[in-house]
Parts: sequence; structure tokens; C-alpha cells
Amino acid sequence: MSIDFKDNSFMVTGGCGFIGSYVVDYLVEKGANHVVVIDNLSAGTSEKILQTHIDNGKVTFVRKDIRAIQPNDPEFEEIHAVYHFAAQPSVPISVKRPYYDFSVNVEGTIRILDAMRTQDVPFMVFAASGGTMYGEKGDHVANEETSLKPINNYGAAKAAAEMYLSSFSHLYNLGTVSLRFGNIYGPRSTHGVMYDFFNKLKADPQQLEILGNGKQTKTYLYISDLINAMDVASQTLRRGHFEAFNISTPVTTTVDEIAHLMVRAMGLQDVRFVYTGGDRGWPGDVKKIKLDTSKINAMGWTPKVPIEEGVELYVNYLKKTEMNGRGS
Amino acid sequence: MSIDFKDNSFMVTGGCGFIGSYVVDYLVEKGANHVVVIDNLSAGTSEKILQTHIDNGKVTFVRKDIRAIQPNDPEFEEIHAVYHFAAQPSVPISVKRPYYDFSVNVEGTIRILDAMRTQDVPFMVFAASGGTMYGEKGDHVANEETSLKPINNYGAAKAAAEMYLSSFSHLYNLGTVSLRFGNIYGPRSTHGVMYDFFNKLKADPQQLEILGNGKQTKTYLYISDLINAMDVASQTLRRGHFEAFNISTPVTTTVDEIAHLMVRAMGLQDVRFVYTGGDRGWPGDVKKIKLDTSKINAMGWTPKVPIEEGVELYVNYLKKTEMNGRGS
Repeated sequence: MSIDFKDNSFMVTGGCGFIGSYVVDYLVEKGANHVVVIDNLSAGTSEKILQTHIDNGKVTFVRKDIRAIQPNDPEFEEIHAVYHFAAQPSVPISVKRPYYDFSVNVEGTIRILDAMRTQDVPFMVFAASGGTMYGEKGDHVANEETSLKPINNYGAAKAAAEMYLSSFSHLYNLGTVSLRFGNIYGPRSTHGVMYDFFNKLKADPQQLEILGNGKQTKTYLYISDLINAMDVASQTLRRGHFEAFNISTPVTTTVDEIAHLMVRAMGLQDVRFVYTGGDRGWPGDVKKIKLDTSKINAMGWTPKVPIEEGVELYVNYLKKTEMNGRGS
Repeated sequence: MSIDFKDNSFMVTGGCGFIGSYVVDYLVEKGANHVVVIDNLSAGTSEKILQTHIDNGKVTFVRKDIRAIQPNDPEFEEIHAVYHFAAQPSVPISVKRPYYDFSVNVEGTIRILDAMRTQDVPFMVFAASGGTMYGEKGDHVANEETSLKPINNYGAAKAAAEMYLSSFSHLYNLGTVSLRFGNIYGPRSTHGVMYDFFNKLKADPQQLEILGNGKQTKTYLYISDLINAMDVASQTLRRGHFEAFNISTPVTTTVDEIAHLMVRAMGLQDVRFVYTGGDRGWPGDVKKIKLDTSKINAMGWTPKVPIEEGVELYVNYLKKTEMNGRGS
């Protein structure tokens, strides 16, 4: 079964954020009847990112914090599926302020699930975290059945929330899909290592400070590939059923390699790399991540954008927004 | 390494409850310097269960709800290890009131962990749930690395809380052990299928209503065996480290068998069993549970009390408290 877009209304939490805004675009392109966007604009974002959709009457924006959601909130009325992408997204903040991170990323999710249960909203697509939920597996390539042993609170929160997707699906006949993805990058992103490197290199094109020893090994996925993966994974939505998918490129990339790609895409030369040292970029940083994605690959999804091309597209976007004075 | 009891103070949450009160006894027997008991007495329990220890100056009772715990609460001062046994214990209530269950069993645990982090309390022993965290595994025997897919909110809550034991251990140098046990029974218990059967058979010794079809297959562990398992498992406590243990008998027992054991122990005959029907006793009831306990078995623990003997001990206790007018 796959979702009937044309006759239904949808909710996107965090719809003014980087990934969430692409989810809204996706739903509108799919012909969704209507999209309600819930966002507290906490990340300095703005509903202007959705202005065209708002002007076209496809999207309604509601400024609301997910921690304030109540079971009978009117926004859930007649909603067919919630795309839950609102989150406190920073691992370092989750480490410094564990209770705050918990309240947004777990309590907020439970509040949404409880409203769905109360108003019989059938489906949820959830943004989890393949990069942090499994914890440190070393050379072990984690598949969806690998045990979850998060080493930071962001990963704990995403894993904790997923436990409730599992129980709510069974108990209240919801259908839920969890997308366990890693680092997502591309236009509109104002977060993550590439964005940080861009700003550091703008400030000083001769020297780049790299957190850790540069050897941390992760996966990076271009935003359009994530949206395609979501489209494929959400075809498994069915009532009473919970399903999780690892979503990642097959290749891993070191932070050093990201640094080189950024330098090249920005047209710089002879940049000196300076390392803060240690094998983690920050407390709770997972040193090495590799995900087994054979489950979603078997459904026909593979990423299309190589990292060299993706970085170039992203850097071009960052340069352009900077020139337009819209850089944050 | 194992815990130094004599020179240290300990905290037991839920210490006035069934299992918690045995944990307090255990700590006092081990020679603990002092034990702080945190309990909200929500289950109709009383600190009188600890009266001897209180009179002996070994135990201080603080009436407090774990949902109200703040990072700098004075009860955590100088505590060496928290034995966290306070919980909303009922699966049916967790299904009917998911947010309430979440706030006690997850939020409460995070609040305790956050206070431990703030005041550098090194160790936690956590009461998790081998019977509900794994969800429905059918004939698969779950070991500690089996993926968690809870089908009720009680199991989701215990699994969610465990994710934070994992992250907090790594991030803040705590040492945590999670005890994944199933049904625990024995004197002082006022919860669970045996207690229900006892009361039903007292009210009507000729007929016993059984929830479901009686074929649900679970494990039942006598309270003293659990305390011994806790003693063994807690020897793995070390800073920066999280460890989970399945704790269970090797044999499983059907609800029908429990009914027969209760009838025999109560000295009844010709009791007619009446089934409410269906393969679950209640929504979210896990039909079949079998745990692989080889991890803790390898450390030298095996259960000592056969179920026939345990049921008899428990029934004798229930009869006695009833005669003393102390049955609840």
C-alpha cells in the first residue's frame, strides 16, 4: 500500500527547517490536498521558506512547540500522515543539556503520537538517526536488527522515541516508519560539518580548524537522495505495523576528506589543516559509522548524487545565499 | 570490581514497593552504611514495610515522586549507587494512559540520571523488563543483543530509559546495569497473575476467570532469585560502562499451569476455569516470552526456587496476611 496524497491532508513538524522544508515540497509535488506545518522557528528559521506554498493555499503554517502539543489539538484533525521532523538536532547540545534534548526529542514525539492515537491519525514517518542510535559499533556494519547502544543523548532520544513508534503501532493500530539516516547535507542546511567548514574558510581561507583528528568516518547523504529514500520507505506504511530503515550511502567519508572536498569546491588552495586532536570531534561523537542499507536497497533505492557533486552543489548554494546577504 | 557497601550510602527508588523493599533488605544485609528510600507510596504501600530499618537508623524514608526530582536534590548527596525500582508497573495502565506511564517510567528515570550526573553519583542498578522490551519474538529466544520492538508502552518505556543508561554511562562516566527480568513473585507482592488468582479464588473457590485463553507462555521468578541475580549482575558495574542482563528461569510456564499451581497451593479442588478468550490477556500482552540468560548464567547465577515451591511460599504468605487482616 502506498499513501494516497491527492485526497488527504498531511502534517510536517519542523517543516520550516532544512529537511522538513524539502518534505513539504515533496508532499506538495505529490499532489497532497493540504499540508499543515508545525514549527517553533527555534533554529532561527522562518516560514518564508514555504511562502510559495502558503501563497498557493497548499500549506498552513502554525507556530507551535511540539512540547506543547495536546491530545485534542485541532491541527491533527483529518490528518492522514504526520511527517515528524521537528527536533533538537545537535549532538553537542544534547550532551550539554540532556533534559532539554529529552523534552524536545522524546517527550515531543510522545505528545504527537498521543494526539495521533486520540484523533486516529493513521500514519507517521519519523526522522530517526542511523548515525547515533547504534552507538559505537567499530567495524561492525549495523543493520536494522543490530542492538541500539547510543553513546550520546541525541541518539538515545531518537532510539527512545522509536520504542514508542513500535508500541503505539501495535496497540493503537497506527502505521509508522522510522528513517534511520546519517548526516544529510545540501542547499538550505545551516548545520553540520560542511556548513561549519564553509564559514571557517570564509573567515580564514588559509587555515581550517578540524574538530578531532580528522579520522572520524561517517556517511553523508545529499538531501534529494534522502527524500527519494523516504518516498520508497513510506510505501511500507500500514496500520498496526512499525518498520525501520537504515538510509545511507554505501561509501563512508572521513572528516579529512570532507575538508579537502570543501576546499576544492570553494576554489581554495594551500589551506593548512589544524586539528583540535583526539579521536572524537566532541563528547558523544561516534568515531566510525557504517550502515547496512540492504533492506531499502532491495526496495529499489540507491543514492544518486556522489559526494563530490553534492558538495559542489551545496557550496554553490552557500556562496549564492551569502552574496544575497541571506547567509545566517 | 564490586560495590563497597560498608563505606557508602545508597538510594533505592520505589523502596516501599514489593521488589524495592527486598532491595533495601539486601543493602542493609550487605552492610550498607545508609540507605535513602524515595517512594511516593502511590501503590497504597507504606514506609512501615521498612520500619525495622528506619528504627535501626539504617534507612531514611523520603516521600517523593520521581517525576519531581531536580538535579540538585539533597537526597543524592554522597550516594554511591541508585537502585532504581520506582515505576508505574502495570502494562494495562500503560496502554490506557500512555503519557502518564511515560512520565513516570521514562521522564522519572531521566530526572534521576540527570541528578546523578549533576552530583556525580557513580552507579545505577535499573529495573528493566525482559518480558516486554523485546516485544513479540514468537519462538525466538531473546538474548541481550536481540533488537527491542516493544508491543506495549510499559516495555517501550523501559527500553527508552535503557537508551539513556547507555548514553549517560558513556558521556558522564556513570556505571549502569540494567536487569531485564520478567514476572517476579513472592511475599509482599500485590500485583500480577498469581495475586489476581488468589483473590479471585478467595472470592469464589469454585470458579476462576482466566484472562485470555490460558496459553500465554511466560517466565516467573521467585523474589529471592531476583535479588541474587541483582547481586551477581551488579558486580559488572564500572564507570563509563553500561551492561544489560536477561534474568529469568530456564523454564516457561503457561497461565493455565499457574492456575493449576495456585489451586493446588490453596488446597482447592474441582475449580472450573472460565476463559475470557483471545490469545492475549490484555492489549499489549506478550503471548510468549523466553529469554536467553546464558550471560548471567556464565557469571554463576541460576535460580534456586522451583515454581511449585515458590507458589506455595507465596500462597502461604497471602493466607497469613489475610488472616492478620493485612491483605490489600
